[in-house]
Amino acid sequence: MILSKKALVTGGAGFLGSHLCRRLLADGYEVTALDNLFTGTKSNIYDLFENRRFSFVLHDVTQPFWGQFDEIYNLACPASPIHYQKNPVETTKSSVLGIMNMLDLALKTKARILHTSTSEIYGDPLVHPQVESYWGNVNTIGIRSCYDEGKRVAETLCADYAREYGVDVRMVRIFNTYGPNMHPKDGRVISNFIMQALQNQDITLFGDGSQTRSFQYCDDLIEAFRRYMSLERPAIDAFIEKHNLGAAVINTGNPGEYTIKQLAEETLRQLPESTSKLVYGPMPKDDPKRRKPDITLAKELLGWEPKVPLQEGLAKTIAYFRTLVK
Amino acid sequence: MILSKKALVTGGAGFLGSHLCRRLLADGYEVTALDNLFTGTKSNIYDLFENRRFSFVLHDVTQPFWGQFDEIYNLACPASPIHYQKNPVETTKSSVLGIMNMLDLALKTKARILHTSTSEIYGDPLVHPQVESYWGNVNTIGIRSCYDEGKRVAETLCADYAREYGVDVRMVRIFNTYGPNMHPKDGRVISNFIMQALQNQDITLFGDGSQTRSFQYCDDLIEAFRRYMSLERPAIDAFIEKHNLGAAVINTGNPGEYTIKQLAEETLRQLPESTSKLVYGPMPKDDPKRRKPDITLAKELLGWEPKVPLQEGLAKTIAYFRTLVK
Repeated sequence: MILSKKALVTGGAGFLGSHLCRRLLADGYEVTALDNLFTGTKSNIYDLFENRRFSFVLHDVTQPFWGQFDEIYNLACPASPIHYQKNPVETTKSSVLGIMNMLDLALKTKARILHTSTSEIYGDPLVHPQVESYWGNVNTIGIRSCYDEGKRVAETLCADYAREYGVDVRMVRIFNTYGPNMHPKDGRVISNFIMQALQNQDITLFGDGSQTRSFQYCDDLIEAFRRYMSLERPAIDAFIEKHNLGAAVINTGNPGEYTIKQLAEETLRQLPESTSKLVYGPMPKDDPKRRKPDITLAKELLGWEPKVPLQEGLAKTIAYFRTLVK
Repeated sequence: MILSKKALVTGGAGFLGSHLCRRLLADGYEVTALDNLFTGTKSNIYDLFENRRFSFVLHDVTQPFWGQFDEIYNLACPASPIHYQKNPVETTKSSVLGIMNMLDLALKTKARILHTSTSEIYGDPLVHPQVESYWGNVNTIGIRSCYDEGKRVAETLCADYAREYGVDVRMVRIFNTYGPNMHPKDGRVISNFIMQALQNQDITLFGDGSQTRSFQYCDDLIEAFRRYMSLERPAIDAFIEKHNLGAAVINTGNPGEYTIKQLAEETLRQLPESTSKLVYGPMPKDDPKRRKPDITLAKELLGWEPKVPLQEGLAKTIAYFRTLVK
């Protein structure tokens, strides 16, 4: 009898979830992936079905789910504006009811839970770069609010389940992340640019393209998840206390800052055969102009920082998208 | 056969809910009050039980409720820090699941719905006075967040049910409101001061007492509810469009600004027999230092403004608290 640790990954067929499942299997876990396949896709995890330590359950996190796990990774939620604005109410519900259900599961089974929050909780930030103690600048009733506010109150629930019920919660605020298995039509800037370049369509920059983003390669982020989850609770509690954080929340992202225009140019540099040109469109409503993580806390707590340079991550991502376009 | 309009009031046994039920009955409605009696109390509505147009249902809004109504007033939620910090998770759930259930009810029955939001969505505001277009300054993981963030995402859900499903939603952001039927132990400043004065206990000011509040008498607010709900949808949509609001949300409050110290002094002036003295305590965590509504939009949309001066409202409130202390 082999006793593997058991992990649950919500959103397990999504972009990040699929990488996390693969990593957990490599680390020897039994892995259960939940996904309603709204934005996730089984093709992201086809290769895992042969692994007997892997299970896939078609399930919507807005409904309760019960099972015994050592670790719960809550990744489920449409995360790109194109997807979440198609169904704003369900997006909020997936964030809010999803985390309630997973916190209830963690509470009843005494599992560790890692919740994936987002840099979007900072909204259009007035503090730069963003530190965890910054409260954010978010519209409650705009067209992006379904995601931003759903994610904000999910953090609140995590903090209160920890304080009120002692649930062992760890939160990460994920900044812009990219890599293979991104949805080709998710409307995010990296997938947009690569798909446009591969198809010789013009690359659209919003505004003048001078708004900046930080780009974190997926493998770097998954490494942060694993290090965070492997910490014992007393170390985390001491860290919260030391930094007067209020809850176990850290930024994870790549602080390297690129303008959208630089990204477009690097994409075209790596695809010299493309005939795409840069064109300019109007800024979408409520789109943040600038965002960059301060990762001082993650460095200290996890001994972690991003390792994959944009050029290298972009090359791997382009290689993936090539397989889709063929 | 008498055909009365039917109204549902969640939180109907609470401070504001009880006044609203009384007003709706006076206006000829059939009224159903829902309350889980966590902070509401049947004594607030004892006098209504004899009215055959009134029904009370002991019900928690975190659970679905079905019935046919013309108008839904969603007031249910613990609203004072003493109450909501006792059970933060349930507070968030009452906001979030409560509004989901009521929006679903409004959607399926084509009812109008008025949702009571709060000035707390502005948090510790960096803009003064607060206008509806201000996004607020709120901590996601602090000890007040259960209320603030629950109320923020409730607004998001209202805005998205309106946009996505055409639900006829109207939102008010209620600033500090007082009057008879306030919970004597809710920890809010007016009830605290009056109870302390009536019992000859020292009156505690947090900080130096220079933080300001606006105080709206309950009857003024209920009048705003009724005017808002009586508007036809096209008038509201035109107003949203004209002011580029994004959703039907208006501030309701009394812009008259008093320091906490002035309030304490007026309370003692009206209770000359009290032997209470003013004492000073430390500021609670995350307590907003200053808050005052801009009610330009409510004035224009509803032809409304507060009419009851603080001295008069305080006198009525003191008269009510006297009956409790006897």
